[in-house]
Amino acid sequence: MDTKKVKAYGTEALGQDLKELDISRRAVLENDVEIEILYCGVCHSDMHHVHGDWGKEKYPLVPGHEIVGRVIGTGPGVTKLKIGDLAGVGCLVDSCRTCESCKKDLEQYCLNGSTVTYGGYDKHSGGHTFGGYSEKIVVDEQFVLKVPLNLDLAAVAPLLCAGITTWSPLRHWKVGKGSKVAVIGLGGLGHMAIKLAKGLGADVTLFSRSKSKEKDAFDLGADAVVMSTDKNQMDAVSSKFDLIIDTVPYIHDVNPYISTLSIDGTLVLVGYLGGLEPILNSVPLIMGRKSVAGSLIGGLAETQEMLDFCGEKNIVSEIEVIRMQDIKQAYDRMLKSDVKYRFVIDMASLKNQQ
Amino acid sequence: MDTKKVKAYGTEALGQDLKELDISRRAVLENDVEIEILYCGVCHSDMHHVHGDWGKEKYPLVPGHEIVGRVIGTGPGVTKLKIGDLAGVGCLVDSCRTCESCKKDLEQYCLNGSTVTYGGYDKHSGGHTFGGYSEKIVVDEQFVLKVPLNLDLAAVAPLLCAGITTWSPLRHWKVGKGSKVAVIGLGGLGHMAIKLAKGLGADVTLFSRSKSKEKDAFDLGADAVVMSTDKNQMDAVSSKFDLIIDTVPYIHDVNPYISTLSIDGTLVLVGYLGGLEPILNSVPLIMGRKSVAGSLIGGLAETQEMLDFCGEKNIVSEIEVIRMQDIKQAYDRMLKSDVKYRFVIDMASLKNQQ
Repeated sequence: MDTKKVKAYGTEALGQDLKELDISRRAVLENDVEIEILYCGVCHSDMHHVHGDWGKEKYPLVPGHEIVGRVIGTGPGVTKLKIGDLAGVGCLVDSCRTCESCKKDLEQYCLNGSTVTYGGYDKHSGGHTFGGYSEKIVVDEQFVLKVPLNLDLAAVAPLLCAGITTWSPLRHWKVGKGSKVAVIGLGGLGHMAIKLAKGLGADVTLFSRSKSKEKDAFDLGADAVVMSTDKNQMDAVSSKFDLIIDTVPYIHDVNPYISTLSIDGTLVLVGYLGGLEPILNSVPLIMGRKSVAGSLIGGLAETQEMLDFCGEKNIVSEIEVIRMQDIKQAYDRMLKSDVKYRFVIDMASLKNQQ
Repeated sequence: MDTKKVKAYGTEALGQDLKELDISRRAVLENDVEIEILYCGVCHSDMHHVHGDWGKEKYPLVPGHEIVGRVIGTGPGVTKLKIGDLAGVGCLVDSCRTCESCKKDLEQYCLNGSTVTYGGYDKHSGGHTFGGYSEKIVVDEQFVLKVPLNLDLAAVAPLLCAGITTWSPLRHWKVGKGSKVAVIGLGGLGHMAIKLAKGLGADVTLFSRSKSKEKDAFDLGADAVVMSTDKNQMDAVSSKFDLIIDTVPYIHDVNPYISTLSIDGTLVLVGYLGGLEPILNSVPLIMGRKSVAGSLIGGLAETQEMLDFCGEKNIVSEIEVIRMQDIKQAYDRMLKSDVKYRFVIDMASLKNQQ
């Protein structure tokens, strides 16, 4: 099939640093939109893939799934977007579209396996997909989002992953005015969870282990901050929360948080993939009909809903803009949680390097 | 306050066998119903309390919370029942009635602590409550159920605990026609879960480790039986179930069952109080928005709903009627899972011993 050479930033083998390289993108097909990428957010998962933390990767590996840019080409079947429009692409670029999940706008749970934005199988090219650390991307319009015009474009990029990952559970568990929501962890996901829950009218508490997060949490809109290391503070919020969004990306004990759920409350894991250690105690679950659940990004319709909501409410991510060439330092700082709260790459830096 | 001496079967200290003894019940108050107990089901928790498995007990300990009988007295404020009516009492005999849970008919989750049928604090007498292994019981009418007239009374008794414990999650998670429900374990709870889920129109599968349960499961109404020890059979039901009712009363690995939940599916623990070992893996929860939850008996309105439903659908428990004097042997057989599926004490045996 027709392809086009596109400049990107990626790695060709495990253990190598990211560097400039050329990739082949498919030419624009019937329903495709071609986007000039202006900004790309830097998700923790980008770093994990580059570091090989999650198993075998396909190379060249070009990360990036928080993509915003401008439409520069459209296939003849495209109706939703036109050249010149702002557009966004998140974690998914395709799915089967026919299974029960896809029919319910839950493409993230596609029963035949959705196509992730990088490292996924591209059924058109037969190769694997390349992410947003690149000049351009070609994506089926069903997986392209419209971006509100009134927002800072760079700060919109993280909404495509960090935003929707926290929005989807807030909506699924019906958070609204007066809901009592807690957020565990104040990073890329956590800071968006606070903003979005607050936007929905909830009373929002941040759980943190660090007193230093307190001022920032209030600045982001939190109504309260509870030190999870302080037993008295934890006891004071016993049985309080309808929903807890747990954004912690490493192994941690969820049992103390279960005690802070109300009857019928749910703790949703969105950040940590692995075994729940120490072991989960069934007693408080049974004694209060509480749940421990998980949630993965969100579907396309829900992502568009979230972007529109952010446009209305003027919600964006807190970001630090970097050059493509500074990605290694950004990863190093992310490992130390030294970012408030998301790095976003200005893709002009890739162009200017020519 | 006025009390009345009532013959019962109980134990006066840890390690002692159950034996005949006298207890004092409060006299009938304004809103009380006095019931002559005809049958009392034998729940696993009776045995655990007698054996001291769950910590310090109050003595004398008189177990029994699956109580059916006939009304023999009513206070002047009683409107729901009259002398001669059949009546039932389950696991609760009181609650605060003013908290958020009580106001929502969720007395089992009373935020101020509901009063359990035996070993609870009786706010009228100031002492502790005594269960159904006795001639008579006095209970506030709000905690007394009406019993359908068309059912075998002895076989109704286990509905008051085993029935409602499985009914409540089936209703809370909205099981109905076409729902795909699985039940783990075929005992007192499991056999009721099959009957009630089937009654609600669900497609019902039993998970079992024992081929010998297969015929019984089909006889009880199951549509399928899956050997949980057989990987091929487990793989064949991958991602199938909307709801799994986990009735297993001992420590067990829930992870293989999580794989059989559909997107948005929930596994509800109703039988096992303790730590979930081996550790629960968050990955399948996140990848399918699945939940692990717990559920405790049910509220009074829901218990009445269940009894009425059982009356309509002719659903009762499968039972083996025993004499009060045979309770030790019954406990011994329960420890070996040698009962299909619930022992029920014919309380006439206590009277006739005089």
